Amino acid sequence: MRIKFQPSGVRGDVPAGQTLLEAATALGVEIESVCGGRGTCGKCRVIASGELSGLTDMERRQLSEAERAAGYRLACQASILGDVSVVVPEESRISRVSILSAGVERRVDLEPWVSRRVVSIPKPTLAEPSADLVRLEAVWAKQWPEPLKPTLRALQQLPLAVRAAEGLVTLLCADDEVVRIEPGQGPPRLLGLALDIGTTTVVGYLLDLETGRQLAVSSLLNPQTRYGDDVVSRIEFSQHEGGLATLQREIVAAINHIIEETVALATAAGEGGISADAILAMTVVGNTTMQHLFLGISPAALAQSPYVPAMTAAQCLRAHELGINIYPDAHVWTLPNIAGWVGADTVGVLLATGIYQDQEIGLAIDIGTNGEMALGSQERLITCSTAAGPAFEGAHLSCGMRAADGAIDAVHMNEDVHWHSIGGAPPRGICGSGLVDLVAEMLRVGVINTAGFMGDGEALRNNGQAKLADRLRQIGRQRAFELVSESQGAGGRPVLVTQRDVRELQLAKGAIRAGIEILIKELGIGREDVRRVYLAGAFGNYIRPQSALAIGLIPHFPNAEIIPVGNAAGSGAKMALLSRSCREQAMALIHSVEYLELSARADFQQEFAEAMLF
Amino acid sequence: MRIKFQPSGVRGDVPAGQTLLEAATALGVEIESVCGGRGTCGKCRVIASGELSGLTDMERRQLSEAERAAGYRLACQASILGDVSVVVPEESRISRVSILSAGVERRVDLEPWVSRRVVSIPKPTLAEPSADLVRLEAVWAKQWPEPLKPTLRALQQLPLAVRAAEGLVTLLCADDEVVRIEPGQGPPRLLGLALDIGTTTVVGYLLDLETGRQLAVSSLLNPQTRYGDDVVSRIEFSQHEGGLATLQREIVAAINHIIEETVALATAAGEGGISADAILAMTVVGNTTMQHLFLGISPAALAQSPYVPAMTAAQCLRAHELGINIYPDAHVWTLPNIAGWVGADTVGVLLATGIYQDQEIGLAIDIGTNGEMALGSQERLITCSTAAGPAFEGAHLSCGMRAADGAIDAVHMNEDVHWHSIGGAPPRGICGSGLVDLVAEMLRVGVINTAGFMGDGEALRNNGQAKLADRLRQIGRQRAFELVSESQGAGGRPVLVTQRDVRELQLAKGAIRAGIEILIKELGIGREDVRRVYLAGAFGNYIRPQSALAIGLIPHFPNAEIIPVGNAAGSGAKMALLSRSCREQAMALIHSVEYLELSARADFQQEFAEAMLF
Repeated sequence: MRIKFQPSGVRGDVPAGQTLLEAATALGVEIESVCGGRGTCGKCRVIASGELSGLTDMERRQLSEAERAAGYRLACQASILGDVSVVVPEESRISRVSILSAGVERRVDLEPWVSRRVVSIPKPTLAEPSADLVRLEAVWAKQWPEPLKPTLRALQQLPLAVRAAEGLVTLLCADDEVVRIEPGQGPPRLLGLALDIGTTTVVGYLLDLETGRQLAVSSLLNPQTRYGDDVVSRIEFSQHEGGLATLQREIVAAINHIIEETVALATAAGEGGISADAILAMTVVGNTTMQHLFLGISPAALAQSPYVPAMTAAQCLRAHELGINIYPDAHVWTLPNIAGWVGADTVGVLLATGIYQDQEIGLAIDIGTNGEMALGSQERLITCSTAAGPAFEGAHLSCGMRAADGAIDAVHMNEDVHWHSIGGAPPRGICGSGLVDLVAEMLRVGVINTAGFMGDGEALRNNGQAKLADRLRQIGRQRAFELVSESQGAGGRPVLVTQRDVRELQLAKGAIRAGIEILIKELGIGREDVRRVYLAGAFGNYIRPQSALAIGLIPHFPNAEIIPVGNAAGSGAKMALLSRSCREQAMALIHSVEYLELSARADFQQEFAEAMLF
Repeated sequence: MRIKFQPSGVRGDVPAGQTLLEAATALGVEIESVCGGRGTCGKCRVIASGELSGLTDMERRQLSEAERAAGYRLACQASILGDVSVVVPEESRISRVSILSAGVERRVDLEPWVSRRVVSIPKPTLAEPSADLVRLEAVWAKQWPEPLKPTLRALQQLPLAVRAAEGLVTLLCADDEVVRIEPGQGPPRLLGLALDIGTTTVVGYLLDLETGRQLAVSSLLNPQTRYGDDVVSRIEFSQHEGGLATLQREIVAAINHIIEETVALATAAGEGGISADAILAMTVVGNTTMQHLFLGISPAALAQSPYVPAMTAAQCLRAHELGINIYPDAHVWTLPNIAGWVGADTVGVLLATGIYQDQEIGLAIDIGTNGEMALGSQERLITCSTAAGPAFEGAHLSCGMRAADGAIDAVHMNEDVHWHSIGGAPPRGICGSGLVDLVAEMLRVGVINTAGFMGDGEALRNNGQAKLADRLRQIGRQRAFELVSESQGAGGRPVLVTQRDVRELQLAKGAIRAGIEILIKELGIGREDVRRVYLAGAFGNYIRPQSALAIGLIPHFPNAEIIPVGNAAGSGAKMALLSRSCREQAMALIHSVEYLELSARADFQQEFAEAMLF
């Protein structure tokens, strides 16, 4: 029989007796079908004309009078008896969502692991006075092969729900569990939260699980910073009496704050049906230590060789086990970690960049206090981590600061220095991307040489760059470069970059660069084979690629595009929230991705020493 | 090869190359083996002599120097090379426990669903820096086919445990989960609690899961009685605002009190290693309403036709979900219910009496406010429930009381009345078993006739029973019988049994008797086919069988033995705690046992009317 689908225009011949859904699948036309063709989800509504089988009971139940008059059918119920023409309306097409991380966009099939299942439970009789759960089980078994597994809370909701709407109830399922039972069609929205726990910043994204739409974003300084700026100091603090519990309590409080804020933001934006209780799913990325602290698992062994985590596997918990204030039985998934120092945030970056599915070779670098790197393609992917030190986050520098108002984040030099401060505020210090810019420029104009040595200005003067030479200072036993004068700096304080600051940056970039070189060596490729370089993390998003190249943070890849991908880890968390396949890919990844422990490599010190030079 | 086992004396021929354990199994000699022959549990220690294979690594690890010198071997590791002789020491024989319920003793194989698994986790290396959990998984996979499923709490315990004793850790497993990870050999004891939530009384039994020994018992008045004496009034209360939560909170508080008390009692008795935190398993029986209230599930629909529960299936929860103060991840199993008015307590009675496994027909009756009955054998078993009313519990009678100090619990008549009060205290009232005795005696001597009518004493006087006749009173519009005079009664008050009290008893016994008659009819047997009648419940334990027969509470079964079984429901809970098979039998039972809804039977009213007569 001939069949034609609109608006795609796909045509084909199919055998009589096939359902419209089977025909669509055979011809590659994508029609939504949540219930697997049982006629119970009502998602496969199409407008069909031609010779078709009569309306089934399921269709009578799912389609209104008006819809039936308009020619609507359920594609899984209507069988083809002759030539037919089918219009697939927008709402019945398989939903795809775009997940955008700055320079890279990934399209994901909307396939959340939380779903609604609407069932009609028959009334009990005196002759058959079986329990609510037994009658529900009977209805369930007819439609779904997996066993019915309600949580205690869902069980507590069952007797009231089943009596509220003539036996019509909506089961909200998370993975293999029924976590909530509501009368009728259930709540207006199913929400999910994708969470990125950074060492410095925590970001939460509130999403509508049924449309994939992002409803709100909220971020907060990680309150654990109070107990230590970086991962190592947090691990140390966690070993004190009560330290681990304190760090866990702090991060949970921050998450609860973010939840409140995203709910308030979305509601303020006019979205309906938003509440923390409607959040039924959550995914969490973060480095291995952040994941340990979030779960209340001691990360102590991560701080010393051989840098072993307690666990790397993805964990699925219920929100109430962690004290997260969303629907108590909501499933909270932490994405898996690859190794002690290559965490779920890197797994998120891999998901967001798709590097593990590419035929061509890509390099992803997530730069912060630690640099995590992944190099490879679908064939083979190797990751490693290096302790970059705090320079890229502006910490431990004489005038370093985080990328906040008043931080210099871009620098240009000609006869003198020009800078840009975040928010246009009087400069208070310099952040990581500003420092990379500055050092690249100092190198170009000759304030420092390729060994990173800051001269006395003699050469600059000889070169007619007196203004720059005038900015050189001697502070105690070391040289410094005055980027901002007392009169221009906030609070009448200058912004100075010392010789030692330059050394810190050299250490940081040397570590990253050495990691990249060893990955290239290990994979056995040439620089010309790399086609895409993804710079992830807030820092990666703000750094100017030419400055990164100029200071040698990344080598010159003749055929590669450099793509800033922003918070790709968070994008990965969103993908795992909206798509079961993405989540499963993440879980499979940790078995296929290789991890290289740089401290076990004999050649690392040599590479590092070389990479310190500009 | 010839093999001989001691102390059993079993001999046989077995092929060379078999292990001692295989040979023992083939010859029916029972040797403990928890790890399934992998050499890791060390339970199958035997003393063997003759031609055997050399010591394996496993044996070197499990057996001390001294044990090896004494000829100890692991039966699963030693292979037979020639004729051998084996002594199976006491500790290696499969443990059987006796569960005694008053008149019936059931032997149960000790097979708790909480167990220890001792493993040795290798150290990580810089070349293979895999996570603690990954290394544990590798060791686990070599020994057990099921996936390793640690709870979050167990995961939190892992990194410290693995570093505390050179990688030797004990995994405490409940069902398919690892709920706790401890360094070394783990805690000294694994405890379990069997709980019977009665409408009136809550009883807890503390057991050692590894020996099956009962360490303490504690009971408490169900604090829910404050909100209603019987099941129906509790169901009503549960429907008030906050009522369900209140009832759940009350029962949980009572259970926590019982837990504290059993722990204190066992410790006071000199038992070591006792703590609430060492309780890793709990089983719960109770009628269907008590189970609903315990789980916080509304029992509202149980109160009106068709008397439908929300759930009947066994539920497995973690203790912390219910607020029970034992080890938080301990598994709490509620036994399944058969129907709205035949609950897990009846399932417990079935387990304890073994009626469902018998070839001969038995009748089990659990008498309280409601009477639950089961009649049948392994072939077919039918249950029903009747609302007996409060008479058997001494409630709602003019002088009725619970079986406490000062309650008359036995009565005998000749020319006058003789009674016994509990604790020898001055009588305050009469309890159920006393009332049955009294009515049986009143009937025998003619104070009442077969219709239950209390005469004016004329006939008694004519019969020379003036003392009895003198005890008849007219109180308002009804007759009464003075059992205890003012001078003998506590506080100078007499104990009187009114005509109306007798009517209450008639209603109660009529309901039970009618249920029994309908079960006999439904099963299609004669009274002579019944071989055992089990009387369960506190009341069933105190009632005198001849009085029960005299008032016609139970019919005369010519070939039956009448066996009081006390708190058989509690014994069933103990069996399910100590034996996974028993628990599974309970779960299977609810599918094979038939339930008869008496109110749906047209013949029930007729049977009831007839059964009201004495």
